[in-house]
Amino acid sequence: MGTRRGGVSRFTVSLPNALMRTLDRLQVGRRYSNRSEFVRDLLRAELVKEEWEEHEGETVGVLVLVYDHDTRALADKLTDIQHEHHGIITAALHVHLDAHTCLEVIPLRGPVKEIRRIADRLLAIKGVRYGQLVPATGKRLT
Amino acid sequence: MGTRRGGVSRFTVSLPNALMRTLDRLQVGRRYSNRSEFVRDLLRAELVKEEWEEHEGETVGVLVLVYDHDTRALADKLTDIQHEHHGIITAALHVHLDAHTCLEVIPLRGPVKEIRRIADRLLAIKGVRYGQLVPATGKRLT
Amino acid sequence: MGTRRGGVSRFTVSLPNALMRTLDRLQVGRRYSNRSEFVRDLLRAELVKEEWEEHEGETVGVLVLVYDHDTRALADKLTDIQHEHHGIITAALHVHLDAHTCLEVIPLRGPVKEIRRIADRLLAIKGVRYGQLVPATGKRLT
Amino acid sequence: MGTRRGGVSRFTVSLPNALMRTLDRLQVGRRYSNRSEFVRDLLRAELVKEEWEEHEGETVGVLVLVYDHDTRALADKLTDIQHEHHGIITAALHVHLDAHTCLEVIPLRGPVKEIRRIADRLLAIKGVRYGQLVPATGKRLT
Repeated sequence: MGTRRGGVSRFTVSLPNALMRTLDRLQVGRRYSNRSEFVRDLLRAELVKEEWEEHEGETVGVLVLVYDHDTRALADKLTDIQHEHHGIITAALHVHLDAHTCLEVIPLRGPVKEIRRIADRLLAIKGVRYGQLVPATGKRLT
Repeated sequence: MGTRRGGVSRFTVSLPNALMRTLDRLQVGRRYSNRSEFVRDLLRAELVKEEWEEHEGETVGVLVLVYDHDTRALADKLTDIQHEHHGIITAALHVHLDAHTCLEVIPLRGPVKEIRRIADRLLAIKGVRYGQLVPATGKRLT
Repeated sequence: MGTRRGGVSRFTVSLPNALMRTLDRLQVGRRYSNRSEFVRDLLRAELVKEEWEEHEGETVGVLVLVYDHDTRALADKLTDIQHEHHGIITAALHVHLDAHTCLEVIPLRGPVKEIRRIADRLLAIKGVRYGQLVPATGKRLT
Repeated sequence: MGTRRGGVSRFTVSLPNALMRTLDRLQVGRRYSNRSEFVRDLLRAELVKEEWEEHEGETVGVLVLVYDHDTRALADKLTDIQHEHHGIITAALHVHLDAHTCLEVIPLRGPVKEIRRIADRLLAIKGVRYGQLVPATGKRLT
């Protein structure tokens, strides 16, 4: 699929109607002149992430976690894993959102593959409700 | 554009050849069976962000900034803006990456529009090289 | 004890010889001209702490803890107590000193008696090896 | 001064009357049976600090600073000095107390003399209203 004429390629996307309506709403809201342009920007943003993941040498990422601290042994497990990798993780900021919910922000520094692997271990802990690994380099400003 | 048959809509995306090759590489690497499926997931992720941005009431976000602290008055400006909004921002973690580069991680709590507005002011400061506002709610685990 | 003549009072201190030698070494090292002057400054520093502890209304303290994270359930207990008091403690900085040792720095804000009570609960947790509650107000600069 | 009989030495302290009354109040409040006992404990606490300052090899301290962020260039200077020593200081927690007042908590790790020297430079910055360097080792639990 994807015909190539000159320097441009084309392909067809099929979407459930509801998602198509979302696409149209987002495209207009963000002032893209057409769907292609919007999809191109989404792909370029993925490319930036990809480049970070392929980065050789030391880099920096920030893992943002939200979890329910009532889950038994969760805080212990988080601390254990972080200490196992104290060369990569030196500090973490813990924010007590309410009586039950914690926000933990963990800067990681080292080879991307190590960062990814540690982040995946932390994200897999039972009781973690939300998590995102943010590459803290590159040029994104949003 | 976008024909609608049954519950499915279609539209055509045109891409520079280089970006098409990136798309194909990412799609295969992330084990999507076709391009449509990959684009659908990108759109769904945007929808999650959109929902966060539309959220009424109090929410939590984390702003990740990287900047060159040698830029004159930059640290002063960052601190000023954060203090102006000390109801939304109560603390920040500052990581000294090297002699010149700072990572600053700032949890924000309040109405989404306020969070977005403050984040945009901080991102616009001259010398900030990278920034991303991460919604710290929802269900994303990546 | 303590005779009073004019505006000055006197009393006698008895010390084990070893501690007297320490006193003399510290007094000389810190450039006090005599023992009385040194003891007066120690008392004045205690007075500043006392004033903080007697302070009415909201104040700020910082609890510095060092503990061995291998102690079972310690991280869980620390997090539990902090969340119970999320009106007083909103965030904490956790530093991974090595594979076993944690430094946790916890700003507290509220009535002094509350701060003191929470600090004492955290200090009493089994496995906490070191702790100090620092009044973060007043005029001390050392 | 200071007669030595058996293993015990004595010396006389002279105090302004007001400070003597403070001493008596603190002594009773902390349940010391006499003034000598109270002064002995103050001296022993100084000895612990002294030992930390004499410690060879790597140690850990926490610098607690309170300052008025409105002072021009203060945040810039704090950041500059911290970055100059990014081998000793890797992170800092900044708490926005109100529209004007900042609490900054800075863990330091390295040789004591280095820690002391950096702390003194940070404490000397104009606009810093309060500061204390806390040794984060040893056995103090108060």
